Amino acid sequence: MKSRHLLGLEGVSYEDINLFLNTAVSFKEILGRKIPKVPTLRGITVVNLFYESSTRTRISFELAEKRLSADTVNFSSSGSSVSKGESLKDTMQNIEAMKIDMVVIRHQSSGAPHYLASCCQSVFINAGDGAHEHPTQGLLDMFTIREKYGRFEGLKVVIVGDIKHSRVARSNIWGLKTMGAQVVVCGPPTLLPLEIEKFGIQVTDDLDEAIIGADVINVLRLQKERQKSGLLPSLREYNRYWGINVDRLKKLNDNFTIMHPGPMNRGVEISSEVAEGPYSVILRQVTNGVAIRMAVLYLLSGGRGKFDEE
Amino acid sequence: MKSRHLLGLEGVSYEDINLFLNTAVSFKEILGRKIPKVPTLRGITVVNLFYESSTRTRISFELAEKRLSADTVNFSSSGSSVSKGESLKDTMQNIEAMKIDMVVIRHQSSGAPHYLASCCQSVFINAGDGAHEHPTQGLLDMFTIREKYGRFEGLKVVIVGDIKHSRVARSNIWGLKTMGAQVVVCGPPTLLPLEIEKFGIQVTDDLDEAIIGADVINVLRLQKERQKSGLLPSLREYNRYWGINVDRLKKLNDNFTIMHPGPMNRGVEISSEVAEGPYSVILRQVTNGVAIRMAVLYLLSGGRGKFDEE
Amino acid sequence: MKSRHLLGLEGVSYEDINLFLNTAVSFKEILGRKIPKVPTLRGITVVNLFYESSTRTRISFELAEKRLSADTVNFSSSGSSVSKGESLKDTMQNIEAMKIDMVVIRHQSSGAPHYLASCCQSVFINAGDGAHEHPTQGLLDMFTIREKYGRFEGLKVVIVGDIKHSRVARSNIWGLKTMGAQVVVCGPPTLLPLEIEKFGIQVTDDLDEAIIGADVINVLRLQKERQKSGLLPSLREYNRYWGINVDRLKKLNDNFTIMHPGPMNRGVEISSEVAEGPYSVILRQVTNGVAIRMAVLYLLSGGRGKFDEE
Repeated sequence: MKSRHLLGLEGVSYEDINLFLNTAVSFKEILGRKIPKVPTLRGITVVNLFYESSTRTRISFELAEKRLSADTVNFSSSGSSVSKGESLKDTMQNIEAMKIDMVVIRHQSSGAPHYLASCCQSVFINAGDGAHEHPTQGLLDMFTIREKYGRFEGLKVVIVGDIKHSRVARSNIWGLKTMGAQVVVCGPPTLLPLEIEKFGIQVTDDLDEAIIGADVINVLRLQKERQKSGLLPSLREYNRYWGINVDRLKKLNDNFTIMHPGPMNRGVEISSEVAEGPYSVILRQVTNGVAIRMAVLYLLSGGRGKFDEE
Repeated sequence: MKSRHLLGLEGVSYEDINLFLNTAVSFKEILGRKIPKVPTLRGITVVNLFYESSTRTRISFELAEKRLSADTVNFSSSGSSVSKGESLKDTMQNIEAMKIDMVVIRHQSSGAPHYLASCCQSVFINAGDGAHEHPTQGLLDMFTIREKYGRFEGLKVVIVGDIKHSRVARSNIWGLKTMGAQVVVCGPPTLLPLEIEKFGIQVTDDLDEAIIGADVINVLRLQKERQKSGLLPSLREYNRYWGINVDRLKKLNDNFTIMHPGPMNRGVEISSEVAEGPYSVILRQVTNGVAIRMAVLYLLSGGRGKFDEE
Repeated sequence: MKSRHLLGLEGVSYEDINLFLNTAVSFKEILGRKIPKVPTLRGITVVNLFYESSTRTRISFELAEKRLSADTVNFSSSGSSVSKGESLKDTMQNIEAMKIDMVVIRHQSSGAPHYLASCCQSVFINAGDGAHEHPTQGLLDMFTIREKYGRFEGLKVVIVGDIKHSRVARSNIWGLKTMGAQVVVCGPPTLLPLEIEKFGIQVTDDLDEAIIGADVINVLRLQKERQKSGLLPSLREYNRYWGINVDRLKKLNDNFTIMHPGPMNRGVEISSEVAEGPYSVILRQVTNGVAIRMAVLYLLSGGRGKFDEE
């Protein structure tokens, strides 16, 4: 691996992404065994440092760690010295001084994992930082796509929703571009990022046009708070123009795929019929998430910090 | 076992209840060993899904799982995607997609475990749903009774308190009826359930009459909120008419037993003298709870969902 | 060991403190290994009972327990039956009835661990009780001092800050006195305890005088709440008179040491330059904390309660 950390998919090479995906294939096989556990990370301590609430990502990482026999310590921002005003760096250096190896961090501020990686010695895995990146989500989405189509070249992937505030979108865009897929993003003009051109992808606010010829539609969760901040007129209007429902999908070819990172707002960005329909791989994404996180933990565990024996 | 799940004691057969109780005898023996741990559930992942706060039940299940060498993941409703508005079914199906085996669920809504059992694949153990059932509490109470008397036939068990809102009472009633005990419930008229006749048990609001000839008095916790909602004039009056104290027990024969599921309101539904007196088995109930939960986890682990290898 | 518990350093003998420190030397060596784990406490169940929020102490204990292969159960006051009004003793006796061995307790009330030790059977380790004691912090501070100087006799240790409300100060004073160090405490007159003479140590509010000839300066965290309660005019004034910065340390000899129990208020009681400077052992204290806690858990595990086999 080029980097000791996984902070984002921006700049991660074709070869490294392939290595993550190929390794996850083996781990998915292990997850299917009667006793889905391997001693791979025995003696490695992983700290799950969650400054933002999370169900699926936290549990997914925790299960990945346990299936690899790592020791885990959970830390969430409530009930902690964060409320005593300690800086992020001091908190991290303190935890690190207790001789831990890897840190899975989710933080509301973009760049927090990069900052810690620059001033601490552990291996850092970004589990979501602000509106920036969520690289393991990007990898699990790509794993799920490759599992179905066996390739990325020639595929058209449409990402629909609040692109501007979505770390899921960013990680998917970087990864899919590197692997050679065609990426189109679509959403309300107020929810498209200003710097969108630099990604080198297609942008549109017309969903019906965007999905023509699509192989994959990745439907983002709509943060209902966007409406309060004036970026959306109403959820109903959002649903009408950018919601994915059965009618809208009638024009697609027969081998397309519907993805969603969860949690879903049924009836807003996606209808229940689509979410549970034959083209949906939403729960398979969740299953693949554990395999991808096992692969990431395994591949990065070799680079864990050497502590000076004082 | 007739069912893959333990959702309640209603409808559970004499044979199955006996199997739970007999299995718990072995596990109680294991708990007394120097290293109280067996590898029985190695490779099994149990999720503790607690939507309501809990100390003893959560810790009791967690200890039972660890003593059986299961992998455990804890989930509580705060700090999770519940606050993001995800449905219970979606949350559960997502957790399940991560390849877990068993779910211990506590939920404020009656029927929540049954609903999940109907639409998900895991084995579900109800750790308390609304005012409906709390089957492992029922089993541990019965285990404690059988440990002392060696039988249920011919025993008179009086359950005292807020029968209407008590899942503990319901599970005890169903189980004890099946096993052949005589059950009497007693409490303020406003806290007796309307449909009480259908249980086929005796009902009275006269405590002194109810406890004549009683072998077991199971004292329920009084939710102090009941007073606010107008169902009770005052805690003092409650204590006077339905509180268990030493004076009241003077008329009983010498081999009776006082139980309480905890946490106790000392001086309200039970006096400290009684709680700590020679007839109390309240702490023994807690000890037996771990053994019963080990038995339930063990007996149901055979029926865990087979996941399709996609 | 004289006591089955570690409730404070008051009254702990020279020999017992030495045993704690010597044992921690071995455990620190184990922490430096590739797989820093030993099976010493296999089969022992430790409950971490935290009634006050904590990051470093809780994680430090949890890691110590895991490195010793103990089974751990975490309990924090939120989301528990504490909110249902159960007494501390009832909560503890219930947890204990589930057959656990050791309890690490932090509580906002001075004396809570002593009270529980007097009425329960488990081995209790005080992880901080009110303004009373924090014995493992005292031991880790002493371990860090001995690691550097190889002795306590003839050393001058200055403790600076809010002595009155500091359990860290109290545990350090008791332990250091027993081991033969010279102890000076220094802080604002309003934050010095009234009964300070009985400790048999030097007291002053003049920091520049206090640190003359000091080997160790242990800088306490300033609770910002003290200002609100009128005990401090302002943080700026506190910093001016009792803050540790590079200028103030210029007069010291070259072999001094700066300690802080964390979390730090940088720019209030200590400057960043000092905290990260060559004399600081602040992060080493954190590392040593895990070794000390392993030693305490190990040495006290022999005295765990024998439960009657009912």
